[in-house]
Amino acid sequence: MATQPMTTQRTPTAAGVARADAKLRAILPPTPLLPATIRGTEVFLKAESLQPIGAFKIRGAWHRLSDLNAEEAARGVVGVSSGNHAQGVAWAAARLGIAAAIVMPVDAPRVKLERTRSLGAEVVLYDRPAGEDRDAVAARLVAERGATLVHAYADPWVIEGQGSAALEAARQLAGRGLPAPTRFVTCCGGGGLTAGIALACPDADVVPVEPEGWDDVARSLAAGAIVPVADLSYPTACDALQTPATRPINFAVLQTRCPFGLMVTPAEVRAAQRYAFAEHRLVLEPGGAAALAAALAGKAALDGTTVITLSGGNTDAAAFAQVLASAD
Amino acid sequence: MATQPMTTQRTPTAAGVARADAKLRAILPPTPLLPATIRGTEVFLKAESLQPIGAFKIRGAWHRLSDLNAEEAARGVVGVSSGNHAQGVAWAAARLGIAAAIVMPVDAPRVKLERTRSLGAEVVLYDRPAGEDRDAVAARLVAERGATLVHAYADPWVIEGQGSAALEAARQLAGRGLPAPTRFVTCCGGGGLTAGIALACPDADVVPVEPEGWDDVARSLAAGAIVPVADLSYPTACDALQTPATRPINFAVLQTRCPFGLMVTPAEVRAAQRYAFAEHRLVLEPGGAAALAAALAGKAALDGTTVITLSGGNTDAAAFAQVLASAD
Repeated sequence: MATQPMTTQRTPTAAGVARADAKLRAILPPTPLLPATIRGTEVFLKAESLQPIGAFKIRGAWHRLSDLNAEEAARGVVGVSSGNHAQGVAWAAARLGIAAAIVMPVDAPRVKLERTRSLGAEVVLYDRPAGEDRDAVAARLVAERGATLVHAYADPWVIEGQGSAALEAARQLAGRGLPAPTRFVTCCGGGGLTAGIALACPDADVVPVEPEGWDDVARSLAAGAIVPVADLSYPTACDALQTPATRPINFAVLQTRCPFGLMVTPAEVRAAQRYAFAEHRLVLEPGGAAALAAALAGKAALDGTTVITLSGGNTDAAAFAQVLASAD
Repeated sequence: MATQPMTTQRTPTAAGVARADAKLRAILPPTPLLPATIRGTEVFLKAESLQPIGAFKIRGAWHRLSDLNAEEAARGVVGVSSGNHAQGVAWAAARLGIAAAIVMPVDAPRVKLERTRSLGAEVVLYDRPAGEDRDAVAARLVAERGATLVHAYADPWVIEGQGSAALEAARQLAGRGLPAPTRFVTCCGGGGLTAGIALACPDADVVPVEPEGWDDVARSLAAGAIVPVADLSYPTACDALQTPATRPINFAVLQTRCPFGLMVTPAEVRAAQRYAFAEHRLVLEPGGAAALAAALAGKAALDGTTVITLSGGNTDAAAFAQVLASAD
């Protein structure tokens, strides 16, 4: 059995991002683009945490599922996700009347498991801590059901859909009479959102930000080739960014558009969560605060017109309360 | 010395709300209008907690201060506020280069005191727990400085400015091809926001919601005359709604438009804060969650097209963490 499920490997395009954007505008209100002053510079926070599922993942999932033909739709979809992509696929599937099975890690935040189920999807657990291959689990389901795999990031539709966040931000800036974005600082797991943004805004710098221990994209950019995460047991609160490696379909875009990636520490991520709470009344999950963390820590340049993605907000109450109470 | 400072008692009008709305659109992006399903019914949450100061109060303050003539502006303004109006006045004053002094209770949440000062305003404390008359403190400042009083709710500009939130919500619904709002359920302190909404949308029902012990508007509506709060020491977490009595300029509007008011308990408010966190990734302060609490508790009717105001999100981290951890 193949451990890498077949994915449709057409190349994602800027035109595809524009088409995804048009489809998404028809069903979802824009997420807020909030002005903020960070280290004395005005920047803009794209609050994707306020999507109905609490993360940008709704974009790529909608673009992919709404492009299935009737025959494909009838056979259903299979997603692989730590939680936010799961909810995106489940949300889109429910709206479109498509059966969805989601392969999720047994140690995913409980809130993400519960919400995926409550959106009507079937959840199939795999043992991430024990190193079980989630792609193999997904491939088996795809083979058994003739379903379409909707990969969390290595999928052209998913990449294009996520990129619509950048077009939306650019449109919001233009609507306020402000210049086009010159830089996106963005939370990065496998590189779906990052590649989508790079395609959407070819004239802007794109800076991926990853958590400590899971900075495979930064290492891959430095090496000029895909370098997987060395230690898959490295602890991180950023479950949304916990991807073993980027994929060729993502890296082909990142390599031409991102000179480097940034890495943030757990303390920097917690500081960003507290800042978002105190200054903007926003709930961010750790992975959703990574780009903001890089900005607040002075790791990311912020001159020009910088848009920072706040990519998700699905965190348990107990975990969030602990972050609010922590001093570092 | 007069204990009731002079306020300009022209009558607030629907035309004034429309003019405020036009001015506010020019400087602030709309706050999100988030769809939500409550008790099986789709409603819309107007997230004023995402204003730059974390509350709708920025609206009335901007409308009032930007209408001052040069001579009035040069003499400065005096505000009276538990915190959110303070920040609204301070924000508008800083933008317009106007000196602002804010009379605040000594027991206001520290975050509100700090933010008001950090916005450049002078904070003058009064002893709320000891029953000191904040209006007398404000009247003295007004007399000494020739400043303009910007009352937190008993001011025609403030009422009109707050009402712009309703016009914005109606515009957002229309932009999505949805019907006009038929009902607003709104957090209510002195009745500035409630009266503004009533003026803005004359065809909609308007339902004020107050916290236990501070339901003077509900009692006044029932009595047909202004009934002040009986026990000014009644404990409440809803400091933003902790007003001793509505005023004639507000009550004149409320009396013709609101058949009744609703009251919510502390536990219902906490449940609403937890719901906003878990389902919408939003931080609400207790007072900002009162209308939502009435909806979730089944106290407010939700049929038709109901808009629920989430009026503010300025809460201390420790207080919010405690609410997240509470079980009731």
